[in-house]
Amino acid sequence: MADVRTLEEHASFGGVQGFHEHGSREVGLPMRFGVYLPPQAKQGPCPLLYCLAGLTCNEQTFAIKAGAQQHASRHGLVLVTPDTSPRETGIPEADAAGWDFGTAAGFYLDATREPYARHWRMESWLMKELPDVLASRFPVQADRVGILGHSMGGHGALTLALRYPGRFRSVSAFAPICAPREVPWGEKAFRGYLGDDVSAWKDHDAVALIERGGRLPKLLVDQGGADQFLASQLRPERLEQACRSSGQPLELRRHESYDHGYFFIASFIGDHLDHHAAQLRAG
Amino acid sequence: MADVRTLEEHASFGGVQGFHEHGSREVGLPMRFGVYLPPQAKQGPCPLLYCLAGLTCNEQTFAIKAGAQQHASRHGLVLVTPDTSPRETGIPEADAAGWDFGTAAGFYLDATREPYARHWRMESWLMKELPDVLASRFPVQADRVGILGHSMGGHGALTLALRYPGRFRSVSAFAPICAPREVPWGEKAFRGYLGDDVSAWKDHDAVALIERGGRLPKLLVDQGGADQFLASQLRPERLEQACRSSGQPLELRRHESYDHGYFFIASFIGDHLDHHAAQLRAG
Repeated sequence: MADVRTLEEHASFGGVQGFHEHGSREVGLPMRFGVYLPPQAKQGPCPLLYCLAGLTCNEQTFAIKAGAQQHASRHGLVLVTPDTSPRETGIPEADAAGWDFGTAAGFYLDATREPYARHWRMESWLMKELPDVLASRFPVQADRVGILGHSMGGHGALTLALRYPGRFRSVSAFAPICAPREVPWGEKAFRGYLGDDVSAWKDHDAVALIERGGRLPKLLVDQGGADQFLASQLRPERLEQACRSSGQPLELRRHESYDHGYFFIASFIGDHLDHHAAQLRAG
Repeated sequence: MADVRTLEEHASFGGVQGFHEHGSREVGLPMRFGVYLPPQAKQGPCPLLYCLAGLTCNEQTFAIKAGAQQHASRHGLVLVTPDTSPRETGIPEADAAGWDFGTAAGFYLDATREPYARHWRMESWLMKELPDVLASRFPVQADRVGILGHSMGGHGALTLALRYPGRFRSVSAFAPICAPREVPWGEKAFRGYLGDDVSAWKDHDAVALIERGGRLPKLLVDQGGADQFLASQLRPERLEQACRSSGQPLELRRHESYDHGYFFIASFIGDHLDHHAAQLRAG
């Protein structure tokens, strides 16, 4: 039984929204995550959907702002909202580098460059450690797992699903950073966490991974047409090109007048949970 | 045309969530408020529902956390979320008195005691000024207006509706402070804003106003059974007694295991908007 400390619990749509902390072996520090248990989890294990948040967020942001619990309750899905980076690492650079790098900006990868390599192990935490923690403490179906994310978390959802084929039965994203190698947020993160060898960056770039032959379950992506980061950081047209060239099924929906924030996510989160539920409950 | 400055606008459920500021004559300072315009507002004026928030909140809190826009979009209701007190008043006591008094704790009344009397005019702002500001700038039906609130905002919704008979066609509350004269939050607020003459407090106490013959449209109140403030600050049983004694129609729903926060509100906000829509669209 994993060592998990429950920090908060709140009844929500017939289920329970909890926030928890555990001592992470991979990260070497306490890590926090939210778990929404739908009412169906009282009867037995339910499929699990990871929801990865964007820059500046923590394990509570998506749980508070996205309005996803009502749909998880409707479909019987467990929602897991991991924090977005290690915290209180004692590395001054991590807090001084701006809101787009370091603390709350883990980019869902394992850093190889110092001073980040020791603690910035978000990929290993999410893929090698957290699943066992969840399985030991919560009623989840370990073979029915989906992933979605927003912005930096959309990058995380796409790249983790591409790097671990078969681990996720369903994948979707809101306004993902599609080609991080090619935009300022991604360049800053990859240079800082991975170093100057740009060939290593391809392993964490959704467009590069798809172009290299990576495959996903049918992908749903929503993008706001009034997103202030659309052209400079997100570049959904690069994802569209890569999917078209390689035969990856993609439903890319463009929503005129929606921006990058949670009012956009909340407006379409119901469709995403429908998408995940259909694939997680099938077969 | 009122002098209103739009600070933010976000597409949301086919409509627009805006946040605005105007120079308030009553308060003598800039005051902020949110307005959600549903898609139906593009065709013409819609009924208006005020949503009053609780202690520590501002004009964004309810708009971000309650998940009300989807239901306002479904029913064609405009939502207005006023800030909870004057800000930057230059009165040191207002920021030093704790989170339950002063800044973000206006209690929806006009203070008569110094140093608060000049700026703490929340009742006059909401009842005498903001309606004209809204009517001049937004497509609202001035004769179809409802009000709801949470905690301190529940107190505000009940007392304003009781003090201004006929102004609100529909009223509801989440975990309201029902008898503020009798609980610590209310005693501190009334003593600070109104002074030591407790007879003046009755004019701003929902239970006292109902006992004195005040009447409301059929009232819907939701209360969590695991609310940490239930016995010490809220006392729904006092409201129940007063309504029963005086024939005021009340539907008081107690929800086991729900607490005082927005996860509770979000779980039942859809029922409240159904309640308001039925009364605001009737006749």
